[in-house]
Amino acid sequence: MLTFLGTSAAVPTKRRNHIGIALKYDGDVFLFDCGENIQRQMLSTKVSPMRIKSIFITHLHGDHILGLPGLLQSLAFMGRKNKLKIYGPEGIEDIVRMSLNFGYFVREYDIEVITVKTDNPKIIEKTEKYEIIAYPTKHSIESYGYIFKEIKKPRLNPEKAKEFGVRKEDFKKLKNGIPVKSIYGLTVYPYQVLLPPKKGMCLAYSGDTLPIEDFGRYLKNLGCDFLIHEATFDDNLKDEAIETMHSTIGDAVNIAKIAGVKVLFLTHISARYDKEYFNIYKSNAEKYSNEKFKIFIPEDLESYNLKDFL
Amino acid sequence: MLTFLGTSAAVPTKRRNHIGIALKYDGDVFLFDCGENIQRQMLSTKVSPMRIKSIFITHLHGDHILGLPGLLQSLAFMGRKNKLKIYGPEGIEDIVRMSLNFGYFVREYDIEVITVKTDNPKIIEKTEKYEIIAYPTKHSIESYGYIFKEIKKPRLNPEKAKEFGVRKEDFKKLKNGIPVKSIYGLTVYPYQVLLPPKKGMCLAYSGDTLPIEDFGRYLKNLGCDFLIHEATFDDNLKDEAIETMHSTIGDAVNIAKIAGVKVLFLTHISARYDKEYFNIYKSNAEKYSNEKFKIFIPEDLESYNLKDFL
Repeated sequence: MLTFLGTSAAVPTKRRNHIGIALKYDGDVFLFDCGENIQRQMLSTKVSPMRIKSIFITHLHGDHILGLPGLLQSLAFMGRKNKLKIYGPEGIEDIVRMSLNFGYFVREYDIEVITVKTDNPKIIEKTEKYEIIAYPTKHSIESYGYIFKEIKKPRLNPEKAKEFGVRKEDFKKLKNGIPVKSIYGLTVYPYQVLLPPKKGMCLAYSGDTLPIEDFGRYLKNLGCDFLIHEATFDDNLKDEAIETMHSTIGDAVNIAKIAGVKVLFLTHISARYDKEYFNIYKSNAEKYSNEKFKIFIPEDLESYNLKDFL
Repeated sequence: MLTFLGTSAAVPTKRRNHIGIALKYDGDVFLFDCGENIQRQMLSTKVSPMRIKSIFITHLHGDHILGLPGLLQSLAFMGRKNKLKIYGPEGIEDIVRMSLNFGYFVREYDIEVITVKTDNPKIIEKTEKYEIIAYPTKHSIESYGYIFKEIKKPRLNPEKAKEFGVRKEDFKKLKNGIPVKSIYGLTVYPYQVLLPPKKGMCLAYSGDTLPIEDFGRYLKNLGCDFLIHEATFDDNLKDEAIETMHSTIGDAVNIAKIAGVKVLFLTHISARYDKEYFNIYKSNAEKYSNEKFKIFIPEDLESYNLKDFL
């Protein structure tokens, strides 16, 4: 489940909160960016702040970090005990340190701050079930996009397993790559009975950036189906986008096309499109409705069940 | 015009934002406390962040200060040029410094930080039209209540002025205490034609505090008509209020009674009263409906025209 907690750019509007995107996966919440008031936005969704495992900050502009102090404090007030990981570019340690000095409160949970520093895509977290990759992007300050990639285990071919005389209780071992003895007393190796794994869910988030075609190609290689790409401006403001190192709707569409995703979410929407001006933005996006992928412009607090699109 | 931008205690709820109260007076906005997201709350009211002249922080707990970084940044993005004053207890300079380092932005307006340090009520700002008094309160950390007191000029008695032969164009001089020449060539002194000034508007805000009867008596002497008093808990939680150095509804009512105000606003409401539990709080307050003053429990974004009550 993917929830857009905030979708604005630098300045929040009545309609849109500072940015923050929550991915719920296997009971954990992964939070991407944390603009002001993200903790309170969560209260209107099914995203539990206590379930946040890691926070991934794309860059240290205020609209992406101002919600950290309040969130970290409220987690303390709520009695959190579990460690929280916070990833971000150089300077993130200072931001977390300042966050913890913004008011007085007693904290019983640990915070591990991981400074991301890489010129190339890099796996920054990996478990049996998923890996998270930081991708260096192009903004006015050091910034990273993040990619969440589910790792699926190989499936067992039940017919093959039967043929080889594998006991049911040994299925799990084979899936984990461990050879077993069959009912015939012979050794059965995983490659003999396993099918290739199903494709895992893969979601990429650009953060603030100029469009990067290589990023699209990288996602294509990963087989990523979902892209959240910033599109601060409509296509008429391409000059402004270049100057401020942001993307337009057309830029985001182009990256999604290169990546071959199934769904593109446009976000980080300039305050100028508040109220009736949103029509300009929306109709610009509708120009691309013939693309092979779906395009959404999420409102704040909207959730998407990604499985619906696979 | 008095606007409640947020009315929650330590942790915000779906219903209530962190605390922040705006007084619009003579085109200026005076902001009392600035919890997280106060800048965005303003967007749903008639309070303009660009019109804020001074911010008064009662104490340095997160729920009273977390909105400062976002507000100060957005004022910069909006191109503010006018100086902003920020008052608060010792440590406020660090908070403002950290606020300005929370992200990267260019600021063209000056910020004057004034550390309040006093054991007795003290006038901290005074113009021809109003004065603002800091009143030391009793909380777990250094804290102040603030009192806004309008200064009214003496009124002219038009019949007396006519009797003395004062020219209309000289009325203003007399009101400002300057003697003038009459049409008869005689000197007219202000005391000869002036009436005592009308009572000015006076509004007090307690911040977080145990109830202080002396505070009530002080407001009585000032002739204060409006009191915003914290009432974090209902009367059944008096022990919890004492332990955490807060007030109950009954405490706030008692101070209002001593002060002899016309209107009491209860605020800084514990998160426990969210949803249906608010009825407990509300019916507790209703027990005091026979008092001589009006009692309000403002919701977020509610405005009150104080003149309506005078």
